[in-house]
Amino acid sequence: MKTIEGGITAAKGFLANGIACGIKKRKKDMALVLSQKDCSFAGAFTTNLVKAAPVLWDQALVKDSASVRGIVINSGNANACTGNQGLEDASAMATLAAKAFGQEVQANQVFVCSTGVIGVPLPMEILGKGIDLCAKNLGGSREAGSLAAEAICTTDTFSKEIAVEVELDGTMVHIGGMAKGSGMIHPNMATMLSFITTDAVIEKEVLQKLLGTTVIDSYNMISVDGDTSTNDTVLVLANGMSQCGTLTPDSSCWDAFKQAFEYVHTYLAKAIVRDGEGAGKFIEVHVGGASDKKTAQILARSVVGSNLVKTAFFGSDANWGRILCAMGYSGAAFDPACVTLSFSSVKGSLEVVSQGQPIVFDEHKAKEILLEKEVQVEVSVGDGPGAGTAWGCDLSYEYVRINGDYRS
Amino acid sequence: MKTIEGGITAAKGFLANGIACGIKKRKKDMALVLSQKDCSFAGAFTTNLVKAAPVLWDQALVKDSASVRGIVINSGNANACTGNQGLEDASAMATLAAKAFGQEVQANQVFVCSTGVIGVPLPMEILGKGIDLCAKNLGGSREAGSLAAEAICTTDTFSKEIAVEVELDGTMVHIGGMAKGSGMIHPNMATMLSFITTDAVIEKEVLQKLLGTTVIDSYNMISVDGDTSTNDTVLVLANGMSQCGTLTPDSSCWDAFKQAFEYVHTYLAKAIVRDGEGAGKFIEVHVGGASDKKTAQILARSVVGSNLVKTAFFGSDANWGRILCAMGYSGAAFDPACVTLSFSSVKGSLEVVSQGQPIVFDEHKAKEILLEKEVQVEVSVGDGPGAGTAWGCDLSYEYVRINGDYRS
Repeated sequence: MKTIEGGITAAKGFLANGIACGIKKRKKDMALVLSQKDCSFAGAFTTNLVKAAPVLWDQALVKDSASVRGIVINSGNANACTGNQGLEDASAMATLAAKAFGQEVQANQVFVCSTGVIGVPLPMEILGKGIDLCAKNLGGSREAGSLAAEAICTTDTFSKEIAVEVELDGTMVHIGGMAKGSGMIHPNMATMLSFITTDAVIEKEVLQKLLGTTVIDSYNMISVDGDTSTNDTVLVLANGMSQCGTLTPDSSCWDAFKQAFEYVHTYLAKAIVRDGEGAGKFIEVHVGGASDKKTAQILARSVVGSNLVKTAFFGSDANWGRILCAMGYSGAAFDPACVTLSFSSVKGSLEVVSQGQPIVFDEHKAKEILLEKEVQVEVSVGDGPGAGTAWGCDLSYEYVRINGDYRS
Repeated sequence: MKTIEGGITAAKGFLANGIACGIKKRKKDMALVLSQKDCSFAGAFTTNLVKAAPVLWDQALVKDSASVRGIVINSGNANACTGNQGLEDASAMATLAAKAFGQEVQANQVFVCSTGVIGVPLPMEILGKGIDLCAKNLGGSREAGSLAAEAICTTDTFSKEIAVEVELDGTMVHIGGMAKGSGMIHPNMATMLSFITTDAVIEKEVLQKLLGTTVIDSYNMISVDGDTSTNDTVLVLANGMSQCGTLTPDSSCWDAFKQAFEYVHTYLAKAIVRDGEGAGKFIEVHVGGASDKKTAQILARSVVGSNLVKTAFFGSDANWGRILCAMGYSGAAFDPACVTLSFSSVKGSLEVVSQGQPIVFDEHKAKEILLEKEVQVEVSVGDGPGAGTAWGCDLSYEYVRINGDYRS
């Protein structure tokens, strides 16, 4: 597997574009992705009981459609909590995009995603004109992908793209993707949209199963603010244009594809956390020695989800007691007397708790380690086989500022 | 029932004192409470798996002791995550306090509470001298109670006291209390200590059962920051000195006592939220029409626990979509299409969602309502019998500042 330049248009036969159509005041707010051939596909969605209208549309597609061709995405308005009008608007978006894509594309072959403010009806007239305009310049270039990646952003401070190539039995297969964060990010699919395209040959059921397990170790292991959004969506489109052999878990090259697939998702999940609202620090928490993987993941997620842990990192404070505290209320079982904990960064590593007993440590050294932009917390809770990693960020003044007047 | 002046010394036969003994740099940090007679008692403790040493000590007392006489409390150091040394120190605190109280008091009749920084051993020499000094001036006056209430505070900006009297079959019974917050506050017993004394005659088992149900609707319905602490403790001491009849659920005056008891706990719980770290607004969320009380309480708690809801209140922003979103990920069942929601304060009331459909509302009016210090959110989720109320506060720059360098 090799990382290459590119994003959502890196795989063969995928076109994209992104423009500013007027939903936001100035910035880009409309993106389209189109495959030149029918795609098999997979989707994963928010677990929030309150689902935005486009999520309901996409879930119906995953259930009922045989193939899809494209995605229409707007930012600036989430079309969430918009009642019956919202459902009609999501359906209308698919119809408008299908028409703009060309006569052979059907509305039930178009995924719809919206992100932005909640509770305000979509400006459908502006949006309809935007879709037509955006469709006029679809392209397969690196730049076309970047325009789309830019147009799906809300409070993101940078756009998130990734592409890899992997040789499978002599055929080069590509996987590309783009994602947006960056508030309402929490385990179980946060306010984030992530789109992956590939020219691999893989059937819908196999792809859906692979996505299901991938989500658990990537998007579900990140937290920005503990709020699980109404719009979270991960979509994968596979158009088969690489003409590699049909991939199944029995294929000789399955592991290579799976690894590349997981890499792309994990990269985008981590990029979302790096760009968490107001985030100044990227925090990786690894828990080992747990009774099983699930226990380790629950413990690691609880740590990156704690406001008190996050504010301590904001202050570069080695307040490890808050980490133990967050593990303690996670609901997962472990013995506090067996916990060993250390902080590390490029400036070195420092053990602060050993077998449940606090260690007198050099505060100066701790500060030096924690002042870095990327910090790792390594926790061992025993000698069990379970391990898990979660990613989070600090909680800053900037987070409060951004969310204190988001609608303004 | 009547609210009266006073706190922990309002009930007959209870003495208290609070002093600065040197655990903190300047402020008061040591409090003692002593009953002149043996007390029946009840306790409720943190559900965090990582329990501070004094919590373990107190839990053993609740399980094994027949009666108690007093409480020793220090602030500035939580004696949490302090390993075996912490357990020895908690036990030593009880022994020192019992000795200072007088020869007839046993160590296993003294509750121990600590609050403050985690992971640092207690300065036992300073603490021992402090206990002796504090015990020298125990008194039953209003002022003595206030000194104790002050000494248990950490980042609290005001001390929290309450006292009521209630006439039970012609006998006047008193209930008094004090509590401290104000970070690590979350449902299921947060970093808070709450102490209640009463001269009512009530047996240990009856008192424990009453406390258990009271905690569910008071302390467990408040949230400041979602972190459930290692030290949360509620203790009730009843010395029977009012000489009222023995109270049981069959007593004619049981309801009057129960109401007064619940009032005192709910008052203190709400006072803790009012003084939440960095809090500028007090938010009451009432959910009605749910299938049962538990469902309504889960929904209400999820709303006051959401960082995005809290930052919206900080910005006085009528971002009701975040409220629906927080209800949606709470795990409790309801139909989003049946939700009706309004904001209110002394400036009036404003409905923003009706039967799941957004209402176009006057933003100016909304701002006027939300700029108040106390705001109510009224949510109906249907026509079921379940209702519940939760209390929370906004999330401000100040919260980040306080917790970014708490150990410094």
